[in-house]
Amino acid sequence: MNEKEKIKNLALAARAASRQLAVAGGQQRDDALKACGSALRKSAGDILSANKKDLDKSEQSKLASAMIERLALDENKIEKMASALDEMAAQIDPVGKTIAGYNRPNGLRIEKRRVPIGVVGIIFESRPNVTSDAAGLCIRSANACILRGGKEAINSNLAIGAAVRKGLSEAGLPVEVVTVLESTDRAMVPAMATAEGLIDLVIPRGGRGLIKAVTDAATIPVIKHYDGICHVYVHEDADIDIASGIVMNAKCQYPGVCNAAETLLVDEAVAGKFLPDISEKLEKAGVELRGCKKSCKLANMKPATEEDWSTEYLELILSVKVVGGLDEAIGHINNFGSNHTDAIVTKSLSASERFTAGVDSSSVMVNASTRFSDGGEYGLGAEVGISTDKLHARGPMGAEDLTTYKWIVTGNGHVRE
Amino acid sequence: MNEKEKIKNLALAARAASRQLAVAGGQQRDDALKACGSALRKSAGDILSANKKDLDKSEQSKLASAMIERLALDENKIEKMASALDEMAAQIDPVGKTIAGYNRPNGLRIEKRRVPIGVVGIIFESRPNVTSDAAGLCIRSANACILRGGKEAINSNLAIGAAVRKGLSEAGLPVEVVTVLESTDRAMVPAMATAEGLIDLVIPRGGRGLIKAVTDAATIPVIKHYDGICHVYVHEDADIDIASGIVMNAKCQYPGVCNAAETLLVDEAVAGKFLPDISEKLEKAGVELRGCKKSCKLANMKPATEEDWSTEYLELILSVKVVGGLDEAIGHINNFGSNHTDAIVTKSLSASERFTAGVDSSSVMVNASTRFSDGGEYGLGAEVGISTDKLHARGPMGAEDLTTYKWIVTGNGHVRE
Repeated sequence: MNEKEKIKNLALAARAASRQLAVAGGQQRDDALKACGSALRKSAGDILSANKKDLDKSEQSKLASAMIERLALDENKIEKMASALDEMAAQIDPVGKTIAGYNRPNGLRIEKRRVPIGVVGIIFESRPNVTSDAAGLCIRSANACILRGGKEAINSNLAIGAAVRKGLSEAGLPVEVVTVLESTDRAMVPAMATAEGLIDLVIPRGGRGLIKAVTDAATIPVIKHYDGICHVYVHEDADIDIASGIVMNAKCQYPGVCNAAETLLVDEAVAGKFLPDISEKLEKAGVELRGCKKSCKLANMKPATEEDWSTEYLELILSVKVVGGLDEAIGHINNFGSNHTDAIVTKSLSASERFTAGVDSSSVMVNASTRFSDGGEYGLGAEVGISTDKLHARGPMGAEDLTTYKWIVTGNGHVRE
Repeated sequence: MNEKEKIKNLALAARAASRQLAVAGGQQRDDALKACGSALRKSAGDILSANKKDLDKSEQSKLASAMIERLALDENKIEKMASALDEMAAQIDPVGKTIAGYNRPNGLRIEKRRVPIGVVGIIFESRPNVTSDAAGLCIRSANACILRGGKEAINSNLAIGAAVRKGLSEAGLPVEVVTVLESTDRAMVPAMATAEGLIDLVIPRGGRGLIKAVTDAATIPVIKHYDGICHVYVHEDADIDIASGIVMNAKCQYPGVCNAAETLLVDEAVAGKFLPDISEKLEKAGVELRGCKKSCKLANMKPATEEDWSTEYLELILSVKVVGGLDEAIGHINNFGSNHTDAIVTKSLSASERFTAGVDSSSVMVNASTRFSDGGEYGLGAEVGISTDKLHARGPMGAEDLTTYKWIVTGNGHVRE
């Protein structure tokens, strides 16, 4: 059996399970999530010994230490995975929500109602906790899922998958709702991404290489989670203390994530006042600054190259540019940014409105740190990720974004003239 | 310059124009739509002589008469195109609509607001009126568009495009908002479908071959408009007169369209009463019936083959199957249907609820004809088409479905702990 056939068989079983899950009541899905959480806790021993196998192998194959850190599980991480499932159980059920409902002049009742997507494929890299998070989000949204993690975590992922399946079964749901692929063959990725009519959506989570491989192969819809080149723009009417607090937070609070700032734009009118002060603070915090010509004249920093404006550093480096005003800032962000999250600091209402309309990003912050661009901070509950696509879901994605809708049209014998 | 470079240059210009259109007021877009309508009326002579060139060529190349019919324009059709634009001008502006807005406990204000997608590529076949309809829907939703029609209509499409550009220019908007491709080279299709970062969405409208070519090549999001294998299911608790009216309407009122019925499912309990009568009526209306074994025993029809259950006839042919009850009907529809539009006729509330939940179709009708599955009938105004995809937009798509959203987050110096 080749990879395409393997995926076909698994997806057909997942599809049948997804129809059962879709018509199950919300209570049953709540119960299943709780049962999955309990099963994870009870299977902690099995999961940790599977994880040990992966860790032993990864040491032999000399994996980078950051990757080993991501891979390693302990009791505490398993408890976190379990309690994340409990939290999902307590979330509002997105399925069945009416998005729009109205009567037409001819008396037809039209309703647009949220329904699950069907079968969702999720392709991810080393963290084994994604297995339970992704499975949980799919159960919450009544989707079956096919999960393909990194090969370095295969034993951990399969052990977590087995525990989740125990929970599903205890709640009276088919185990095929969650499938963790046993094969780590690379050919499984294009096989998933071309499973038309079998898998409805594929979500790659990970590095650019993985996402590009999935997108290039795919003939089914993909929601990409690319990088974030986020900007903080200090407008001439900014409150300087607020600007300073936001720049420090956006760059330094957690530099390794996609919603951390990578570029600071400062209006010429305030650059003389703002830049010397903020660059001193940033330097004290260990941030390397790379500035445009004007910035370099105003504060101590090394010159930026053209490449800096489109680089996601993910570390304590910040590029700095002095701009002539709002329009130049918007232009720079739209040209060099990644349409992820960008902030303006200003007291001016009109500047704020022009910025939020002009910047083509999934999240636009006004007087707030870019770091807030996050499903939890937006009140969406657990997060599927931050979509950098514009179609279907944009920005932080919660369980509701794993649903689609159905039109329900009710008449009493209506026929079309 | 190869096709990829041609598309790149056009899309870059479209992209710049789309940012201007996005920040223009709704009034300016209303004005532009009206100006485009007037320009079409004023350019009727030019458009008709361009159309004559296409018609002459199509006669030489012996195009099928149905295709020539679709291609041919007259004063009346041009007036319809113009008044469709006037109607779009009168529609509610989808841009700027708040989808969700709330305050977080920390005082952050979160708003999810509709914004245009950016640049939309539309690939279609022979009808030249799609040029103005698609351009109008994109202007309504503040998107720039790149239009690629069939080569048999190239002169007509370019003439319509020129008129629309006159209208845009009169309303003070950049003409690059609407681009009709001059090249009819086949290589333009994959070039559009792989224009990452330049075109945000591609919509193929036409036959399966076209849609498949676009989907296979695409690395950017595609919204497909596949065929409709629509069912009418007559439940045992159906009002027989209503069932009869709906079956006749769904099959006969306009058989050549995707929301016409192709299969009739009848509950065993009422088949003996219903089938002889309806088959007589259908036969009188010129419908050829192809039935399952049980149907053939109850009424005069030829036997259906396995292929019939998954065939979109688009003509006066109907496949007929007797089913054991609701579950079998739902199973048949999910297996053999195309997830487009399916109807139940019943007086039973519980049957209606189980059917609407169980059938995985974009539109589910209760006691109404499948023919109502249409943007106009749903009150969406002009229609982009009927999406058979589940992602982003499902079922009838209006101008609002050509928008995405942006998160606008407002604080007063908020930083993340």
